[in-house]
Formats: sequence, C-alpha cells, structure tokens
Amino acid sequence: MPATGNRAVRAAMLIIGNEILSGRTRDANLTHFAERLSSRGIELCEVRIVQDTEPAIVYALNALRASHDLVFTTGGIGPTHDDITADSVAKAFGVAIGENAEAIALLEAHYQVPGDFTAARRRMARIPAGASLIENTVSAAPGFRIDNVYVMAGIPRIAAAMLEVVLETLPQGIIRGVVTIKARVAEGRIADGLRAIQSRFPEVEIGSYPSYAAGDFHTALVLKSPDAARLTAGKAEILALLAREGAIAEEI
Amino acid sequence: MPATGNRAVRAAMLIIGNEILSGRTRDANLTHFAERLSSRGIELCEVRIVQDTEPAIVYALNALRASHDLVFTTGGIGPTHDDITADSVAKAFGVAIGENAEAIALLEAHYQVPGDFTAARRRMARIPAGASLIENTVSAAPGFRIDNVYVMAGIPRIAAAMLEVVLETLPQGIIRGVVTIKARVAEGRIADGLRAIQSRFPEVEIGSYPSYAAGDFHTALVLKSPDAARLTAGKAEILALLAREGAIAEEI
Repeated sequence: MPATGNRAVRAAMLIIGNEILSGRTRDANLTHFAERLSSRGIELCEVRIVQDTEPAIVYALNALRASHDLVFTTGGIGPTHDDITADSVAKAFGVAIGENAEAIALLEAHYQVPGDFTAARRRMARIPAGASLIENTVSAAPGFRIDNVYVMAGIPRIAAAMLEVVLETLPQGIIRGVVTIKARVAEGRIADGLRAIQSRFPEVEIGSYPSYAAGDFHTALVLKSPDAARLTAGKAEILALLAREGAIAEEI
Repeated sequence: MPATGNRAVRAAMLIIGNEILSGRTRDANLTHFAERLSSRGIELCEVRIVQDTEPAIVYALNALRASHDLVFTTGGIGPTHDDITADSVAKAFGVAIGENAEAIALLEAHYQVPGDFTAARRRMARIPAGASLIENTVSAAPGFRIDNVYVMAGIPRIAAAMLEVVLETLPQGIIRGVVTIKARVAEGRIADGLRAIQSRFPEVEIGSYPSYAAGDFHTALVLKSPDAARLTAGKAEILALLAREGAIAEEI
C-alpha cells in the first residue's frame, strides 16, 4: 500500500449539466474522479447532479462545501449562454466576479488567429475574486479553486487533466486496502453468514453488490480496511463461507 | 408528440450505494430513468448519490421529497447487512417498519426449495408502515411506494422492470419536443450567435454540449420546447448560424 495519511478526507462532487440529467450524455467523470481520489486516500462520499440554473448550483454547492473537506465541480465553465458555473460559484461564496488578468493572458496566447478570441470565449476568463487558477493542459481555458472548492470542466479529457494538476496538492487521506471477491451465488444465500462476519470485523467495511447476467445471480464482495491483517483475516472467513455454500469464487 | 399534461412534473433520483461512489460500479439507472420519465413529460431535475449509511439516506431523502413532486430511489433493498434503505426510508418518514404480509407471501411463493427462504431473504419483506408494494417481475422481492417516494432495486434489470410497473400511474407532465443538432465546430465559435438566438427564443431551452474527439471539438445543440412552431423556428436560426460559420452540421 502507498503511504497513508492519518485522518479521513471526505470529498463530494457536484456535476452540473442538463445533458446528464436528461440521460442524453452519460457522465464519465465520477468513476475516474473516485478512483484517482482514492489513490490519495480521499473518499468520495456524495455526488449531486444538478441543472444549469443558478439557484440549483448555489444551493447544492453551499450544502456540499459545508459538509465535506473538498468539493469538485464539473461542467458549465465553457463559453455558451448555459455555462453559468463561475458566476454561480461567486454567488455561493458571496464574492465578486470579473475578468481575471492571468486567465485573459492564457486565452490570448491560445487563440492567436484573428477573430478566434471571441467575446464568448472571453467570458471563460471570468473568475470569482480570491480564486486561484487550475491549469487546463488541453484547451487553455482554466478551472479555478476557491477555498475547498475545485471548479473544473465537464469534458472528461479536460476534467481528468485538471484533476492531475491539483491531485498532489490535496490533503492525503487514510489509504485503505481493498479486496474484491467475485462469486457465482445469489447474495441471499450468504447474507446471514456475511452479517455475522461483518459484526466480528467492524474495522473492515464489507460491501455486497449483486448483479444478474445470463440467468444467474452473481455477487461481488468488496472489503476495505486500513488494517492489512484484519483485511486478510476477513477475506479468509468470507472465502470459507463461500466454500461452505459451494459457490465458485475468485479474488480479482 | 404524445398527449401532454398541462403542468410541470419534477422528479429526483436518490442512488444509494458505496459501489457507485467508489467508482467500482458505473450507475446504469440514471440514463434509463431519465429517458422513460421524459416519455411521460416528467423532468429529472436532480440526482444525489449517497453512501449506505442511515444518516446520509435520511437526510437526502427528506430534502428531495420536500422539493420534488416525485422521488425514485435505487439500491439497498436486498438481503445483506449493507441493505438499509427500507429502514432508512421508514426513519425519514417517522413511521414504523416490520414484516409486510403481502411481501412475505410473494417471497414464500418464490423461494419454494427448502432452505432457500433464509432469514436474510426474509428481511426483504420489511416494508415501512403505510407503503404499498411495487411488483418485481424479475426476482420477487418487491419495491415499495410511500407518499411521493418510489423505492426500487439497484440492479438495472430489476429497477427498469419496477419503473415500468409504476410508470403509467405517475402524473403526466408537459411533453416537450426535442431537436438535436450535431456540428463539427468548437462551441466558442458559435457562442455569441447562440446567446442571441436564446434571448429571442425564451420558450425554447437551448443546451450546448461540447465534446472532444480525434483532435476536433464538436458541439451538440439540444433544443427543447412544448411549442412545436417555435422549436422549428429556433432550429432554422441555429442551422443558419452554423452554415454562416461553415460548420458541418446534421440533425440527429
């Protein structure tokens, strides 16, 4: 396991965009952010997906930033009329917003063909007062950080690049070991045994995730713990339970 | 367009499960629910994804059910120790929970092999007082409805089946026509023109969704309106804007 921090770091994501809520676009950022944050021991504890309206963004952001150590927003920082994240973040924090000189310089350097630096693109330099920029290594228009809130693009490739820029600067949380066991068994057959094991292993989080494919029920068991010895002991008990039930099982 | 209702119906989803937040499992219900609800004119306005803990579920559910016409939850109604949705819903509503005779009968009929109806599976008959059951045509264990909250399974095939069972009973919302135009253009090039069109067409919601593939920026423009004539007129203006920019565009 990599070096671990000694306190829990709890994060939330705020995904902004009607296209996700309409089902037209499937969000691709949640999975990636969860995995990358987890590599620093940061736990993604809540996600909210809201429409492109100022009241929705302000309300959700203020709730999440008060209840989590870190908040990551994606979406709504482009040049079009429905990109209202930066203004909404300023409103949530009660600060002014205006053109940021550093952001203007980045955009001017990127859009050098005459006519390319449109008025609409200039709006991407609007940054709340007191925020610091997050570099966009793909397409110049920056994200920004204000207090514990990191405001990023919605396009997955750009969002991922921005996350890499800030990842090393985030507080280090507690790294937990993870064991995943897949078994061809309906979880109802092992649920009583699992409950007994969970009660003997309170320091191991045991998740049971059923799925259904080709007429069979399958169960994925995911064990997480900062205590490697207890994790191994818990895994052994679960494998024994599965063997008693005659379930085909493998650690993946 | 199908028959439309005459008032907006606003829905929220509450997705319950550590496996979604950890990035291990990608949620597959949001997209399907958004599309099916939209077919009844019901707009999915907010989604929250929370961990399998009672305080998280109670807090989110009480917030969402107070602020939306309908709430759909997915996940956490199986037989294992981490399936705590039914108890948490009862707590959120301040009602008792216990074995529901109708649910017991459904499960007894399904698990007829001796030993199959385990104590853990019996827990799936725990239903909050005052709730009515939602049929599970796949694997018997029912969902339930209490007031404006519909509690459903997390496994996509079962969740989808439960949604079909209740869909016809839901209030009919305003059906909006939708036009989608895909264009090979960076949205920054058309953003000023789009803003002008949006201001002339307040009754048409115009969304601009950028993507990036194979070194090119693309933009999807999605127009929605209950007014078919204005939708057509707005589409014509946008196609003209794209033509002036020399963008390859097609309605899809």
